[in-house]
Amino acid sequence: MEGAKSVEELLKSDFELLNLFATNEFIGRNESQLKKRSAEIQEVEESELDSVGAFQTNTSALAIARMKKNIAPGVGTDEYVLVLDDVRDPGNLGTIIRTADWYGITRIIASEETADFYNPKVISATMGSFCRVNVFYTSLNEFLATVTIPVYGTFLDGQNIHTLSFANGGLIVIGNEARGISEEIEKFVTQKITIPSFGKAESLNAGVATAIVLDNLRRSKK
Amino acid sequence: MEGAKSVEELLKSDFELLNLFATNEFIGRNESQLKKRSAEIQEVEESELDSVGAFQTNTSALAIARMKKNIAPGVGTDEYVLVLDDVRDPGNLGTIIRTADWYGITRIIASEETADFYNPKVISATMGSFCRVNVFYTSLNEFLATVTIPVYGTFLDGQNIHTLSFANGGLIVIGNEARGISEEIEKFVTQKITIPSFGKAESLNAGVATAIVLDNLRRSKK
Repeated sequence: MEGAKSVEELLKSDFELLNLFATNEFIGRNESQLKKRSAEIQEVEESELDSVGAFQTNTSALAIARMKKNIAPGVGTDEYVLVLDDVRDPGNLGTIIRTADWYGITRIIASEETADFYNPKVISATMGSFCRVNVFYTSLNEFLATVTIPVYGTFLDGQNIHTLSFANGGLIVIGNEARGISEEIEKFVTQKITIPSFGKAESLNAGVATAIVLDNLRRSKK
Repeated sequence: MEGAKSVEELLKSDFELLNLFATNEFIGRNESQLKKRSAEIQEVEESELDSVGAFQTNTSALAIARMKKNIAPGVGTDEYVLVLDDVRDPGNLGTIIRTADWYGITRIIASEETADFYNPKVISATMGSFCRVNVFYTSLNEFLATVTIPVYGTFLDGQNIHTLSFANGGLIVIGNEARGISEEIEKFVTQKITIPSFGKAESLNAGVATAIVLDNLRRSKK
């Protein structure tokens, strides 16, 4: 993890911190959090941070944490979980995680072709939300075959989400950037939904579509 | 413009096409549109397209068009126009243009620090909507000082957009990715609005926030 924002979120999370390379200023500012950790901490200069890592604007901290195990979440009947059908762009995945966190969704189930959660571009785009949202990678075919709760998916010929009354819980499938939801996955969708269009664009960005569905869902369930 | 999708949208638009480099297949497929144009057309191989331009996946066409003049739009009282206060990321600007097109908004007024409309990453992220949405660059301070219609802006302490009744027309100000709407521009905002949060993320991506506001706006005015 790189940068003050991501590393500070990491310190507040249940990720296991292994190493921290940070400026004197960052270490001082996060002293109370760091006392709770058994990680190796090394003070470095800003210029040293600038020369390592994937991003060039890091001026305060770089952390190494243990990746979490890929454990299947139990899915209750009164909550919403996102299902990603090959969302390949790291920026889109990061934005989806950040948006899920805004709307109180803490679990995502992703196809094995979906971008890697630990890609630095994903972590960065989550703006710290990677600590509060869990992504489980699996075969969607196998997973969806076991599901009995409502499965929503966005299509061009579904029910208008401005008028739909959402169930108390369910899955929301987000399709691939180029082809949408695949035919293989479409057969598990129990309720096709549509974001109404008022203009001429043919489609919406995957992160944007997720956000609009979640906003309508939370609005409908208030 | 690069790629079949962008170039085909360009052919349908009022942009002046100067040169087209395209495969035999692309030229054949778009024959009727090309007949209407006086552009120089050159047939090339896929491999030649791959070796030029900003993107590596272009296998059909590359076009050169004349940039449009930066002309101030007249803003009516019964329409909505987006105002971008230093949206610096090209991907975000592209997504905002695409989303505006989805929601029937055809005009955007951008600060001079906003990403350049003609940046290839912007054009690409619009997915063709660059042909239907006009972006005018200007000093927002000077522009907003002349405005008498409602000016909406997203803040953390504004009115909930789930319950707000939007006016028949107005401006919607979208803030910079890092700092939101600047203090200078905030003084022109006549109605602060807020996207309600149901989780723990501190903020939303600029493109996502735009989309949620526009969805609520169109829903409110039906």
